[in-house]
Amino acid sequence: MTPLPTRRGVLAAGAVLLALWAAPALAEKRAFEMTIEDTRINLVEQRGFHTFAFNGQVPGPLIHVVEGDDVEVTVTNMTTLPHTIHWHGMIQRGTWESDGVPDMTQKAIAPGETYTYRFTAVPSGTMWYHCHVNVNEHVAMRGMWGPMIVDPKKPTAVEKEVTKDHILMLSSWASQWADKPGQGGLPGDVFDYFTLNGKAFPDTTPITVKKGDVLRLRFIAAGDAIHSIHLHGHVFEVAFKDGHPLPAPYKADTLLIGPGERYDIIVRADNPGRWMIHDHVDSHTVNGDKPHGGIMTVIEYEGIPKDQPWYHWAHKAPVADFYYEESLKAGKHGLLENPAYKGTPAN
Amino acid sequence: MTPLPTRRGVLAAGAVLLALWAAPALAEKRAFEMTIEDTRINLVEQRGFHTFAFNGQVPGPLIHVVEGDDVEVTVTNMTTLPHTIHWHGMIQRGTWESDGVPDMTQKAIAPGETYTYRFTAVPSGTMWYHCHVNVNEHVAMRGMWGPMIVDPKKPTAVEKEVTKDHILMLSSWASQWADKPGQGGLPGDVFDYFTLNGKAFPDTTPITVKKGDVLRLRFIAAGDAIHSIHLHGHVFEVAFKDGHPLPAPYKADTLLIGPGERYDIIVRADNPGRWMIHDHVDSHTVNGDKPHGGIMTVIEYEGIPKDQPWYHWAHKAPVADFYYEESLKAGKHGLLENPAYKGTPAN
Amino acid sequence: MTPLPTRRGVLAAGAVLLALWAAPALAEKRAFEMTIEDTRINLVEQRGFHTFAFNGQVPGPLIHVVEGDDVEVTVTNMTTLPHTIHWHGMIQRGTWESDGVPDMTQKAIAPGETYTYRFTAVPSGTMWYHCHVNVNEHVAMRGMWGPMIVDPKKPTAVEKEVTKDHILMLSSWASQWADKPGQGGLPGDVFDYFTLNGKAFPDTTPITVKKGDVLRLRFIAAGDAIHSIHLHGHVFEVAFKDGHPLPAPYKADTLLIGPGERYDIIVRADNPGRWMIHDHVDSHTVNGDKPHGGIMTVIEYEGIPKDQPWYHWAHKAPVADFYYEESLKAGKHGLLENPAYKGTPAN
Repeated sequence: MTPLPTRRGVLAAGAVLLALWAAPALAEKRAFEMTIEDTRINLVEQRGFHTFAFNGQVPGPLIHVVEGDDVEVTVTNMTTLPHTIHWHGMIQRGTWESDGVPDMTQKAIAPGETYTYRFTAVPSGTMWYHCHVNVNEHVAMRGMWGPMIVDPKKPTAVEKEVTKDHILMLSSWASQWADKPGQGGLPGDVFDYFTLNGKAFPDTTPITVKKGDVLRLRFIAAGDAIHSIHLHGHVFEVAFKDGHPLPAPYKADTLLIGPGERYDIIVRADNPGRWMIHDHVDSHTVNGDKPHGGIMTVIEYEGIPKDQPWYHWAHKAPVADFYYEESLKAGKHGLLENPAYKGTPAN
Repeated sequence: MTPLPTRRGVLAAGAVLLALWAAPALAEKRAFEMTIEDTRINLVEQRGFHTFAFNGQVPGPLIHVVEGDDVEVTVTNMTTLPHTIHWHGMIQRGTWESDGVPDMTQKAIAPGETYTYRFTAVPSGTMWYHCHVNVNEHVAMRGMWGPMIVDPKKPTAVEKEVTKDHILMLSSWASQWADKPGQGGLPGDVFDYFTLNGKAFPDTTPITVKKGDVLRLRFIAAGDAIHSIHLHGHVFEVAFKDGHPLPAPYKADTLLIGPGERYDIIVRADNPGRWMIHDHVDSHTVNGDKPHGGIMTVIEYEGIPKDQPWYHWAHKAPVADFYYEESLKAGKHGLLENPAYKGTPAN
Repeated sequence: MTPLPTRRGVLAAGAVLLALWAAPALAEKRAFEMTIEDTRINLVEQRGFHTFAFNGQVPGPLIHVVEGDDVEVTVTNMTTLPHTIHWHGMIQRGTWESDGVPDMTQKAIAPGETYTYRFTAVPSGTMWYHCHVNVNEHVAMRGMWGPMIVDPKKPTAVEKEVTKDHILMLSSWASQWADKPGQGGLPGDVFDYFTLNGKAFPDTTPITVKKGDVLRLRFIAAGDAIHSIHLHGHVFEVAFKDGHPLPAPYKADTLLIGPGERYDIIVRADNPGRWMIHDHVDSHTVNGDKPHGGIMTVIEYEGIPKDQPWYHWAHKAPVADFYYEESLKAGKHGLLENPAYKGTPAN
């Protein structure tokens, strides 16, 4: 967002104020640099995985821009395999060569090479980016994805109500290939780890709210599984599909989402308590052969005591910005990294 | 429902009649007792399965109440493993400790112990209950689920039209674990049996209708599979999602439903004949390695002769209340068991 | 469509012209003959598969009729196994014995036998037909399916805008059973080939458009997989579900579709370039163990140069009518075969 308050201080007349509403229409130029790195991350506890990670993190950095911004991303491939970046949801008007598909819109970026993507951020909404080379391995299993949020110039009524914004990227992993980069992601593979922003329970982190909050949960199905997300204690509203406002938002407590889809749901925090949010595909709540893992977390309300002796997360220190909730706050635009997602160099 | 006709006979004045419309708002107190039992059921023919069954039946008893009722369920765990009950869809306003999640909202109910859940039945609609311990085994494969129907205080127009109401719970089973309670439900397992209310074809039972009926079919995906339900001979209306009326009901002949979701569809019985209703995930219509099984049944219209020599179910004796259609009739509230679903004690 | 221009030449008065608008209501009688043949097709390159193919092709011939037409299809089973045809989506009013379900609505058609189906083509929309015997093998894996398009008497506004109409049938294949007709399609099978109209990339063909075109893409999930179809460069409108206009069409870039479902999407060709359309279930974009295959194709705009040295399909000769786009043109009704889908006799 352009720095409206400052301008507002300078300007006075009503007619000029009117013009201010159009101010965000002035496209910003956003130039970013990214790397793709052989990176080892931990999905949960000691379960490591060799990924090809954007800026060495999974999920990759948040690209947070405004509708109409001119975006330039210069990518350097520091791995030993070819890659590209597809900006899933961006329509690339007039810039099809920046669509990021190997042998279709560009030659893949060879190891050691650099490539620059340029496009206008249209349309607004919950988008994401990912590699488009050997997607069955690189996207489905090597963590080559990150979120891209394009703020609308004209938010909808419900968007204006939101007090807390969160990104939840879902993925699955086949541990048999954890240490074999360049292989795997084939029919018949057993996917046995399941993550929320790259982590499986109990290494996920609570979502904290206070009564009266209006949560926006932006789900992005980044891996190769279909998920059925269930929220306890609330009826939510399914408000956006693939970034676009639904013409007839509907109520639900369980959300089916398939690879590449995004759904934004609105949760009105009107029911203090402690509430699970998890994949209802039951086999997605295991870590390998151990139950009670995978895609699970908890919404904790302020003021609910956590001192029950049986509460699993009584002494859990929440990880800041785990759902990019800090990075999504108004005015924070740019390419926003997240230390919580950083791995260590592999090889 | 409160016994309106009786009251109506007693009261006279218009002003009082007006008050009657509010009568269902007087919350009933409903107190139930349930057990969890090691129970052997037959999915089809000789294919047995060791379950942990609510009141010794799969699906569990129907909990049929009215919106706003105060519900109390006292559960005794008669198995050798810990369990809980989550009331899927109930928002548990002010009663989060009754939400039934081990280590999150309560300590799991140990073998031999009893636990009491108390909550107000809100919101109305097609809900269900299930264990929340080791869901990948207990829910996905050991039959720990049953339906909960909360009648609305103010039914929608289409609900008032319904003449026959049915519950159809979908589940899948991995026979490799049939006799190994406490194990299974892991990534890579082969699920090879598929059931409708705990039975696979040909051990399901016909849905019988007469021309003019308005059917409500309440689908509950209780297991770990995604189902694609196809009805022959009719275009149905998808009317409710997770118990909630859709703002824009739509027409379809095939319904995709994932774990934990519920969809209520409205079928206008205007086309006499004999019509399949089955999972269009073709591999869900086998029993083990034998085709023509799994999630399949038939809608039979009154007056259609059944004497064709090739009709598979010409001499089939329908099982009463197989779809809880008797139990769902107006005024029948409470915890309603079903002899058709009873198994035999295991161990 | 009835031959309106000819009639128009004969008639003159305004009152009579008014009657002409009702002319399509005069049901045509459409009588077709079909065979079911042991047929070997190639999914991609040298990957052959033994199918039971309608008229020796996969997909089967397009049945293209008008709402209300009286359809008669005489089928001869030239294979060694029993079959039927179910007309998925047709409500078969008054003709339930033509619904094509073995042991339910008819005795299956034995090898060498002939059977005649008769029904009125209602409702309109994107429908399909398939065998209903051993569907886990015959439909999920032996190519026993084809499209049936019923043109509406009264098209919707958006239908009238369409300039190019396409059929895209999705399916999956388990190569372990390629040469074993009469077997396979069981839980635990590994499906390792994935096709669009019976072909896997790179043996699919581009969809060619010019700026200003309004595309209708009719997706039919004919096999046993769930697909998540992503279109690049455009936001599409999900307009029809199972042939029926959605009351609240919505915008998306990714479409989840399960077995038996159909979705028609509207794509406004307003963004010249070269755009992928592919399954975002990443493992559905492999051919066996080789990445970059399966369910993928490209939308090519007129005027976009194809001479980039890295363009995979720079010299590709598009296959005519690959998406039945020629056969769908106005006025072309009947049973329309497609040489592009023909296999060779098996056995």
